[in-house]
Amino acid sequence: MKEYLHILKIGGNVIGNEITLTSVLNTFSKKEGKKIIVHGGGKKATFLAEKLGVSSVFVEGRRITDEASLEIAVMVYAGWYNKKIVAQCHTMGMSALGLSGTDVNAILSEKRPVNPIDFGWVGDPKKVNVSALNQFLKDNLNLVFCAITHDGHGQLLNTNADTIASTLGSAFAPFYEVNLTYCLELPGVLKDISDEQSVIDSLDFNAYQKGRELGYFHAGMIPKLENAFKAIENGVAKVIICGPDSFPANGGTHIFK
Amino acid sequence: MKEYLHILKIGGNVIGNEITLTSVLNTFSKKEGKKIIVHGGGKKATFLAEKLGVSSVFVEGRRITDEASLEIAVMVYAGWYNKKIVAQCHTMGMSALGLSGTDVNAILSEKRPVNPIDFGWVGDPKKVNVSALNQFLKDNLNLVFCAITHDGHGQLLNTNADTIASTLGSAFAPFYEVNLTYCLELPGVLKDISDEQSVIDSLDFNAYQKGRELGYFHAGMIPKLENAFKAIENGVAKVIICGPDSFPANGGTHIFK
Repeated sequence: MKEYLHILKIGGNVIGNEITLTSVLNTFSKKEGKKIIVHGGGKKATFLAEKLGVSSVFVEGRRITDEASLEIAVMVYAGWYNKKIVAQCHTMGMSALGLSGTDVNAILSEKRPVNPIDFGWVGDPKKVNVSALNQFLKDNLNLVFCAITHDGHGQLLNTNADTIASTLGSAFAPFYEVNLTYCLELPGVLKDISDEQSVIDSLDFNAYQKGRELGYFHAGMIPKLENAFKAIENGVAKVIICGPDSFPANGGTHIFK
Repeated sequence: MKEYLHILKIGGNVIGNEITLTSVLNTFSKKEGKKIIVHGGGKKATFLAEKLGVSSVFVEGRRITDEASLEIAVMVYAGWYNKKIVAQCHTMGMSALGLSGTDVNAILSEKRPVNPIDFGWVGDPKKVNVSALNQFLKDNLNLVFCAITHDGHGQLLNTNADTIASTLGSAFAPFYEVNLTYCLELPGVLKDISDEQSVIDSLDFNAYQKGRELGYFHAGMIPKLENAFKAIENGVAKVIICGPDSFPANGGTHIFK
């Protein structure tokens, strides 16, 4: 069997709570195999934007990134949270390297077309520098990715962290037994958003499509599920969407083809 | 002869000017051998602190770093400037990896003692992870260091960028022919701070000590010179303090034992 590569995407609300974050990182540090953490840090960026008088606009759950918002995103994601998490990893015996998509040209993105919606400085990943990143993994480095990429022409781009996790999972699927976990504030994908007990144990693409037609899933969950199914489609061995409490036990929602 | 390692420290005022920064990076990209860039970003941090209502206090030219100031420093140095410079390096054919001292435990620091002055969350470098960094250099990565380190216990520390450049130079001196350049807004070390024509071509430690006693050097230059002499003492082959205009021609002030 191929070696395990565990990819953990940590949601903004998990990062925002120091006790929860420490607990999740601690559990993750004990996994055997290679490890990649992907994080955003949305709430703090919104908070900082407010303090600086930069207005945050969201369309379909995604932030519109003007020049000022990009600067804030880079500062918060690539700066504060990335280095905080890397420093914390070292205290747990994980030798960690913080990365954005521009470092070693790790994730080259394309600025999203301005039609139908101009999202501003937002990028969609096009190419992963698998050989450079795999060299880091082989050197036993644990990678900590923030949700910033670049276009190769000097422009940084705000990028969806769920997409980065899925993209990295897909890129490494030929080489590793990839386990991809989306850890968010909810205990998993819910049948009823108002009822945290209504976690769907497993979800396949057919059921997802039917559920989506029936309006089962709330706006924020849909891009996450799309990314999850894309990863499975691309050969990722296991995808789980779960909360911080069910993360250690591999609870939450298992995604199947 | 050993292979060249060029270390370039870029000062805050050089970083703050896009045209100057591009010109300096472009010249640097053409140097043969391994390359490390070290940067701070002081002016932007001060500006952001003002906008956020965080007061900046300086003692002996060094910032007092409270919790809020540390967060700003990490955001600006490790976030915005580090990723901007890395992205720009890629456009010049330099495959770049942005680092802080916490990444791969690159530079382990000790929080500065609170006596005689409590500088807050400020660290003095104690140990460089030479083997991990050298592996990156051997993989033909150009390293871009921001002036943030850590204490190994999860605490990030604001660290003088000149000291980081000198510390890296000293650490690599046994393995490379290290050329260390401090590129600042002035054309070099000046005899008379009000006269930019008064550049001292070369300065040895004796002359420096005498000049210091006579009050020749302004407050900001003294820690830089101390770092420069420390690097030379530790085996760095060549240390130059110069402005962006004299950087290509290796003008400025040459430092000797």
